[in-house]
Amino acid sequence: MEYESVMKLLLERGFFFPSSEIYSDAPAGFWEAGPLGLGLRNRFVDLWRRELIRRDGMIEMEGSQIMPASVFRASGHLESFADPIATCKQCKSATRIDKLLEKHTREIIPEGLRESEYQDLIDRHNVKCPSCGGQLDTIRLFNMMFRLGIGAGNDDAYLRPETCQSIFVDFLRLFKVMRCKLPIAIAQHGKSFRNEISPRQSIIRLREFYQAEIEIFFNPENDTKFEKFDAEKDTVLRIKKADGTEVVQRCADFVDANILPNRLAGYYLALLQKFYGTTGVDLNRARFRELGKMERAFYSSSGFDFEVETSIGWLELVACNYRGDYDLSRHSAVSKRDISVMDGLDKVTPHVFELSMGVDRSLYAILEHNFREEEQRVVLGLKPFLAPIQAGVFPLITRDGLPEQAQSVYRQLCVDFSCFYDASGSIGRRYRRGDEAGFPFAITVDHQTLSDGTVTIRYRDSMEQSRVPLTELSDKLRVLLAYS
Amino acid sequence: MEYESVMKLLLERGFFFPSSEIYSDAPAGFWEAGPLGLGLRNRFVDLWRRELIRRDGMIEMEGSQIMPASVFRASGHLESFADPIATCKQCKSATRIDKLLEKHTREIIPEGLRESEYQDLIDRHNVKCPSCGGQLDTIRLFNMMFRLGIGAGNDDAYLRPETCQSIFVDFLRLFKVMRCKLPIAIAQHGKSFRNEISPRQSIIRLREFYQAEIEIFFNPENDTKFEKFDAEKDTVLRIKKADGTEVVQRCADFVDANILPNRLAGYYLALLQKFYGTTGVDLNRARFRELGKMERAFYSSSGFDFEVETSIGWLELVACNYRGDYDLSRHSAVSKRDISVMDGLDKVTPHVFELSMGVDRSLYAILEHNFREEEQRVVLGLKPFLAPIQAGVFPLITRDGLPEQAQSVYRQLCVDFSCFYDASGSIGRRYRRGDEAGFPFAITVDHQTLSDGTVTIRYRDSMEQSRVPLTELSDKLRVLLAYS
Repeated sequence: MEYESVMKLLLERGFFFPSSEIYSDAPAGFWEAGPLGLGLRNRFVDLWRRELIRRDGMIEMEGSQIMPASVFRASGHLESFADPIATCKQCKSATRIDKLLEKHTREIIPEGLRESEYQDLIDRHNVKCPSCGGQLDTIRLFNMMFRLGIGAGNDDAYLRPETCQSIFVDFLRLFKVMRCKLPIAIAQHGKSFRNEISPRQSIIRLREFYQAEIEIFFNPENDTKFEKFDAEKDTVLRIKKADGTEVVQRCADFVDANILPNRLAGYYLALLQKFYGTTGVDLNRARFRELGKMERAFYSSSGFDFEVETSIGWLELVACNYRGDYDLSRHSAVSKRDISVMDGLDKVTPHVFELSMGVDRSLYAILEHNFREEEQRVVLGLKPFLAPIQAGVFPLITRDGLPEQAQSVYRQLCVDFSCFYDASGSIGRRYRRGDEAGFPFAITVDHQTLSDGTVTIRYRDSMEQSRVPLTELSDKLRVLLAYS
Repeated sequence: MEYESVMKLLLERGFFFPSSEIYSDAPAGFWEAGPLGLGLRNRFVDLWRRELIRRDGMIEMEGSQIMPASVFRASGHLESFADPIATCKQCKSATRIDKLLEKHTREIIPEGLRESEYQDLIDRHNVKCPSCGGQLDTIRLFNMMFRLGIGAGNDDAYLRPETCQSIFVDFLRLFKVMRCKLPIAIAQHGKSFRNEISPRQSIIRLREFYQAEIEIFFNPENDTKFEKFDAEKDTVLRIKKADGTEVVQRCADFVDANILPNRLAGYYLALLQKFYGTTGVDLNRARFRELGKMERAFYSSSGFDFEVETSIGWLELVACNYRGDYDLSRHSAVSKRDISVMDGLDKVTPHVFELSMGVDRSLYAILEHNFREEEQRVVLGLKPFLAPIQAGVFPLITRDGLPEQAQSVYRQLCVDFSCFYDASGSIGRRYRRGDEAGFPFAITVDHQTLSDGTVTIRYRDSMEQSRVPLTELSDKLRVLLAYS
C-alpha cells in the first residue's frame, strides 16, 4: 500500500494525528498517538523488552529529557549538532542547504563543513530558493537542540537530541548498583527532540520522537572471548557495502572479512534482524547498509543502517554504530571523573557499540508492510501479539437482549484484554472496520448465545468463524494472543 | 521507615538517582529511574491501565510534550501559571514568596495575587531572605512553563505543564475516531514539566515528572442517568472537609449531602481509592481532602486531593477537580472551533471531572508504605505483581557446576519474567539484597537440582522455601505473579 493511503487509514482509525491541530499556529513535526497508535507502540516496546532486553540479559533505565549544558559540551552536540540553513531574501522561507545541494549536485555533501564552504558550493552551482527561486541570504549553522532556561537564573539546559547521553552519563552508577560485568548492554526507550528545519512525512521525521537505544559496553581486547557469538554466527545477513555491492552471507563470514568490526557487533546485528522478523516487518525487504566515511559521525569507526523498503523508499530504522571509547572518554574529560571500570584484572574505559532505533518510523514500516488490499476489504494483518485492540465484541443485532449480553461479554474480557465494543452498523461493516484497525479477532454475540452460552470467534485473516463457550473464551484468547 | 532511609535504599538498589550527577552544573529537580525504578513505574502504569482504563472502558492517548503558545493562551497558563519570587539583594538566592509568607504567617496565601499585594504582605510582616536574612529585592511573577523556540523563526512553544491539555485539544478528534458517547473518560500517562524555583525532596517535587491524568467528559444534565454509580454507591470514603472536620461514610451519602458535586464524581473517587488499595498503599493512612475556595484554581468549582500519610507528612498523590466546561470552552473560543458534541438529541459542551495523578510521588508512597525493618533484615514487601524484579536466580555455591545450571534456569525464565542472576556473596546475603530490592521470590539451584531437576523457591515475606521441579517452574511463577 502507498504512503498516502496508509496515512489516511491511520488518521481515520485513530492511530496517529497532528498535534494541536485545532490551532493554526501548531508547528509541523509534532504528532499525537491516538488509542490505537499508543497501543501498538506499547506492544512494540514490550516486544523489544522481551526479545532484546530480557532475552539477552540487558539492563534498562530511563533518564531525564532535560540535561545541562555540560553534557552536550562533552558529547560535541553544542559545537557540531547543527544544520546549515539559509533564508530566502524574497519569500523568507528557511531551507537546509546540505539537502538542497545534494538534490542539485546528486552527490553526498560531507557532514560538518564550515559556513564558507557551503557558501562556495551554493555560489558555484548557482542554487536558488527551492520555494520561489529567489536569492538565498547568508548561510548560518543552526543548532538542532532545543534550548531552555532553568530556575530563576535561566541556566542553560537542552532537551536531549538522543537518549544515549543519559546512558553514558549514568554508566558508572548503573554499572555499580546493578553489579555489572563487561560486556553489558544498557538500554533506554524514551523521547528525543530535534529542532528540524523541515519536518516532513508525518511520523517519519518528527521534532519530538521516540528512540529505543541499546548501548553495549565492552572491552575490545576480549572480543575472541565473546562466547554468545556462537549462537548467531550462522545467521545470514544482507549487507549493502559502502562500495554499493550487496553481500548475503553468514554473520561469521562478515566478521572474518572485516566488514563487521568484531564478533560482538555481528551478534547484535543478528539479534536486531531477528527482532524485526518477529515484528512482522518483511525481512525480504530489509538490509543493513554500510555507511561510508563521509556519512559517518566523526567518532564512529564503523556504521550500519538497518533499512526497510517502503513506498517512500528505503527507510532507516536503526543506526548501528561502533562509537569506540569516544563517549565515556569525553564525559570523563569534561566532568573530571574517572569513568573506567575493572574487567577481570584490567582497568578499562569500555568501547561502545550501539543500536539506535527510531520507534515511530519502525511502527510506520510495520504498518505499511502489514496492510493489504483485498477485493472486498482492507486488512491490517498485524501479528496478534502486536495488535492494539485484541478483540472486537459485537452484538449481531441491537435488539432481543443481544447488546446487554454482548456488554456482559465485554466486561468479562476487558480487564485482561484490550477490547472494543461496537454495536453500530451492520455486522459486516463492523467486521470491516475491525479488519482495517487490525483487530485479530471478533467475538460476536448472537441468538444462540442466549440459549447455549457460546459465541463466535471470527479470525481476521481467514475470515473463518468458530463457536466457543463463554466459559472458555478467556483461555482461548490467551492462547491466540501468545508470542510466537 | 523514614524518608532518609527510604531514599538511601532506593539509591543503593538502583531505583532512582539524581540526573547527570557526574556534572557539577546538573540542576536540581531532575532524577533518573534506574532498572528497578523503571520496572516499578512500568508495572504501576500497567495496573493503572488494568484497573482504571480497561475496567472502566476509558480510552487512552499520548500527545506531544511540546505545544504551541495558543494552547496555553487558551488554558490560562501563559497569563497566570506563575509563582511570585524575589531574589535576595545580599546572597542572590531566589525564593518563592507565597511559600515563605505561609511559613511566616501560618496562613494560606490565596493563589493569583498581584506583585504589589505580595509586596504589601512582605513589608507588613517584615520578611527577610530565608537563606541569609538579607533584604529581598522586588517581587516578580515567574512563569513556571519552560519556553522553547521552534524552527528557524524561533516560534513560541512550551513544554506542557500538565498532560491534560493534549486531551482537551484533541478531544474532538478522539471523540470522532473512537465513535464515543458521553460520558467518556480519556486518559494519558506522560511527562509534564514545571520550572520550579525550589525543587526538593528528590522524586516528590520534580521539574520533569510523570502524570497519569484521566479527564471524564460528561453532560451535567444527565447525572441522574449515570448508572455505573450503583456499583460504587456503598463504597466508604474518608473525606477531610474544607472546614477541617473529617467524615467517613458511604459515597452515596457524600453525594446526597452535596459534599461531592455529583454521582459521577463519587463513582470515580471510589474507583481511585480502590486502585490505590490494589497498589499496596495503606488505605488506613489515606484520605480525600476537600479544597477550600482559596486553594482551588479559579476554574474549579469543587476539588479533592487524594492524600497519603508518609514520614514527611500528608502527601498529595492525586488532584481531583471539577473543571466544568472551562477547558473546552476556552479552547473553542481561542481556536474558533466548535467543540460541542451530541448527547442524544442535545448539543453540549461537556463538563470535565479530572483525576490528575502524580506518578513519581505515588511510587514514593507505595515504596515507603511497603518497606519494613525486621530484626535481621529490611524487606520491601511490594505486591508480587508490582515487583520490578520478579525472581532472583541464585546458585547455592559457585562450584560443582551449580552456576552453569543456575544460568540455564535464568535463561529459561528471563524471556517471560524479569529475573536477576546473582552468584556473588553468601546465599544469605543474596537473599537479603533481594529482600531489600523487593524480589518476591528467589530460585536457588543446589546439589539436589543436579540429581532430581528440582529447585527451591524462597518466599520473601515468609522466608519459607519449597521445592519445585524445573518443568513446573514457569507455570508456578505465573500463578504467584498474577494480579490479586
